Amino acid sequence: MADSPATKLDLAAELTALLGPDRVSVAPDVLETHSIDKWHASAPPEVVVLARERGDVEKTLRLAHQHSIPVTTRGGGVGYVGGAVPVKGGIVLSVRGMDRIVEINTADGVAVVEPGVILDDLQRAVRAKGWYYPPDPASLKECTLGGNIACNAGGPRCLKYGVTRHYVLGLEVVLANGDVLVTGGRCHKNKTGFDLIGSFVGSEGMLGVVTRATLRLIPHPEARAMLTATFDTFAEAAAAVQSILNSRWQPSALEITDGFTLRAARDYLGAEALPDGNAHLIVEIDGRADSVRGELAALREFLSSLGTLSVGEAPDEAGCEAIWRLRRDFSYSLRATGLVKLNEDIVVPRSKLVDLVNFAHRLQEETGIEVACFGHAGDGNIHTNLMVPNYHDDPAARARADEALDQLFHWVLGVGGAITGEHGIGLAKKRWYPDAVPPVGQAVHRALKDALDPTGILNPGKFVTPV
Amino acid sequence: MADSPATKLDLAAELTALLGPDRVSVAPDVLETHSIDKWHASAPPEVVVLARERGDVEKTLRLAHQHSIPVTTRGGGVGYVGGAVPVKGGIVLSVRGMDRIVEINTADGVAVVEPGVILDDLQRAVRAKGWYYPPDPASLKECTLGGNIACNAGGPRCLKYGVTRHYVLGLEVVLANGDVLVTGGRCHKNKTGFDLIGSFVGSEGMLGVVTRATLRLIPHPEARAMLTATFDTFAEAAAAVQSILNSRWQPSALEITDGFTLRAARDYLGAEALPDGNAHLIVEIDGRADSVRGELAALREFLSSLGTLSVGEAPDEAGCEAIWRLRRDFSYSLRATGLVKLNEDIVVPRSKLVDLVNFAHRLQEETGIEVACFGHAGDGNIHTNLMVPNYHDDPAARARADEALDQLFHWVLGVGGAITGEHGIGLAKKRWYPDAVPPVGQAVHRALKDALDPTGILNPGKFVTPV
Repeated sequence: MADSPATKLDLAAELTALLGPDRVSVAPDVLETHSIDKWHASAPPEVVVLARERGDVEKTLRLAHQHSIPVTTRGGGVGYVGGAVPVKGGIVLSVRGMDRIVEINTADGVAVVEPGVILDDLQRAVRAKGWYYPPDPASLKECTLGGNIACNAGGPRCLKYGVTRHYVLGLEVVLANGDVLVTGGRCHKNKTGFDLIGSFVGSEGMLGVVTRATLRLIPHPEARAMLTATFDTFAEAAAAVQSILNSRWQPSALEITDGFTLRAARDYLGAEALPDGNAHLIVEIDGRADSVRGELAALREFLSSLGTLSVGEAPDEAGCEAIWRLRRDFSYSLRATGLVKLNEDIVVPRSKLVDLVNFAHRLQEETGIEVACFGHAGDGNIHTNLMVPNYHDDPAARARADEALDQLFHWVLGVGGAITGEHGIGLAKKRWYPDAVPPVGQAVHRALKDALDPTGILNPGKFVTPV
Repeated sequence: MADSPATKLDLAAELTALLGPDRVSVAPDVLETHSIDKWHASAPPEVVVLARERGDVEKTLRLAHQHSIPVTTRGGGVGYVGGAVPVKGGIVLSVRGMDRIVEINTADGVAVVEPGVILDDLQRAVRAKGWYYPPDPASLKECTLGGNIACNAGGPRCLKYGVTRHYVLGLEVVLANGDVLVTGGRCHKNKTGFDLIGSFVGSEGMLGVVTRATLRLIPHPEARAMLTATFDTFAEAAAAVQSILNSRWQPSALEITDGFTLRAARDYLGAEALPDGNAHLIVEIDGRADSVRGELAALREFLSSLGTLSVGEAPDEAGCEAIWRLRRDFSYSLRATGLVKLNEDIVVPRSKLVDLVNFAHRLQEETGIEVACFGHAGDGNIHTNLMVPNYHDDPAARARADEALDQLFHWVLGVGGAITGEHGIGLAKKRWYPDAVPPVGQAVHRALKDALDPTGILNPGKFVTPV
């Protein structure tokens, strides 16, 4: 590993010779902005490569492979788990500048993009043609498609439409040794050999660097609409989720919010912004305009039979967006409490939603740390936020919070849940990776890592440790 | 490799000692039925293991791993590409007898199954509870879920609902060395580490043996309905496919049939069974009952504006099933021509549907071999059937047909298509694997194979050749 100042200078000089001066930086402000993501860890790279084309990535990886230099690939840098933090130094390879939407082809139902394209930019461009790219993580205005692919990004609408993996038809990937793999293409079905695409989607930058992706598009639903409902208890809201699905509705989103989050939201947004009740449910539907109109009325009647305190509705696009904005404000409301929000995107089997919230209450009583739960009820992916005073400044507070996280993750694994549904493992959940993945699974991870990145240069220091 | 009669006896004796006499067979009729699938290749195993539980699979693989004995895993044995044919002899490991539906849990939205469960049995059991497991290959009454996972099975409804991969949440896999990997679970989202599930789904028995799967279920749509339309030309039918999707419909299936197939179907089923026209389109929609009623009328009006010769409708489940039965009869109609049907499940980018049929006509003119095209127009996956006289008896006819297949696959690859959308490569398409997968992709296949099956015992002789 290249750590001494002399080597550092050589590395930057070598990269500059290969890529040109405008694509390589050791400027302190550039190093600093490439040291972090949205988690709290920070580690500076020795040098930042600002790739503009595939050749930049190839040359960088060939050099790094030859000299065993760590390479941490970076898109929007808005991950929540420290996945883009270059903990082993070396090179941060930013593909943010590879931001061309190469093609939107509705006849084939595909978009071809470079990895630095912002998700929202793609969605708008596709939408303008009447087509749809559904994955919708909350960071959609800042996150890149390369990052979405690295994390297999989800979002509320993945309940109906599936996660990022379901939309990747083809990839161009620069492998650790600089070789270029082209796999899949623009066919909507393809059973040619193993699922190489799946090897890279969700691999958190540890198996290769995506330089181009062909994404599946689907026709944009003509209309959407939404119902919101409040309940006296979280258990009643969770039971409503089960009733809706058991009554053969296929909502495009089903979101739930607990009492703590609602109280914080009322404090932040004003009590009038949110109706009463200790649990809140969002049900979004989409489809043909006439159908959505009729279904909204039928679903409203059905919901009202489930013990709601109140039911609101958003009959159109604009109304839905207003509610989604309010929903996104929940995060800001929690931040406005002045507490540090440790946002854990755990998943439980859907039958365990109430158990989760009951556990969260117990955890709060035992530890004094308030816990706010809200998120994707339909797929059991509940963002569970531990609200910690002085997390960054008080080691004792931090130790208590880490102990509470430990309890949370072990409880989640104990009920057959998962420690991460959307954000990935990165650094934040590395500690619990051995609990979540039994030894044989760890060995398979290592075997795949060794097969594709034998010198271990890609995003080192994250969850797969060298043999 | 164990080939001599002496070794053969030892192998059977060794397996019998491990598994008991009722789970091991060298009876000639058992060897014979385990020598083939639905393709024309045949090769006898030395011994057949009839596994009833995971322990049988573990013991078999440990022994095979130790002695480098080929193991070809088998489910329903109804694949179309020779994937289950034990070309290197050794053991056929049948998991057909592991056929328990372990659990259907609608609160969690999952089914837990053993690999030998017949797809139709699962779908009926799930449907009885108001839930849905969508993948629907035509072989659904004979194929097993283990085979579906090995081939990442599709079917008409995958247009809206996605292929098998999108429904596998968790797997228990016995690895080549006998170790048991448990990955994923019953969560509907899971970003814990690499996508190990994706490594096994679609791997055609070459990376591990699935002994249990947890499958995602979704609420069953309340209703479905169907329109059928005939057109004077295939080009008009293909244009209608584009118009439907561009008008923001999301059909559950969009199937197209060409003139040759229709003529064969009229000969076989009687002219009155099918309306006139040289191309036939099926559009299936599903959703809430009231919505489907309204949409059927709107879609009928829309279709009629697209130059149809005639439009028929099936307003309910029973009507849809009748049309699907007719559609499945197309295959039998082609067989009834007395010609050998080489069914190639190629895929083209959706914009190339007309080019494909034009190419098929040219191929027919050049080679004298009639070509029938029908299948999944929505995702470009058209089953292209070369109708060959005396394929099995006349070497010259066979050579001409193989030459025509060569032209077909190279044309498909030339337009950015795929040589298989559903059936896999197996033996039938092995010859074109190097054309479809460039050298870097082949190297990645080999690296993954070597990582998970270092001694190369799993389904040897198929497309990934040892280094």
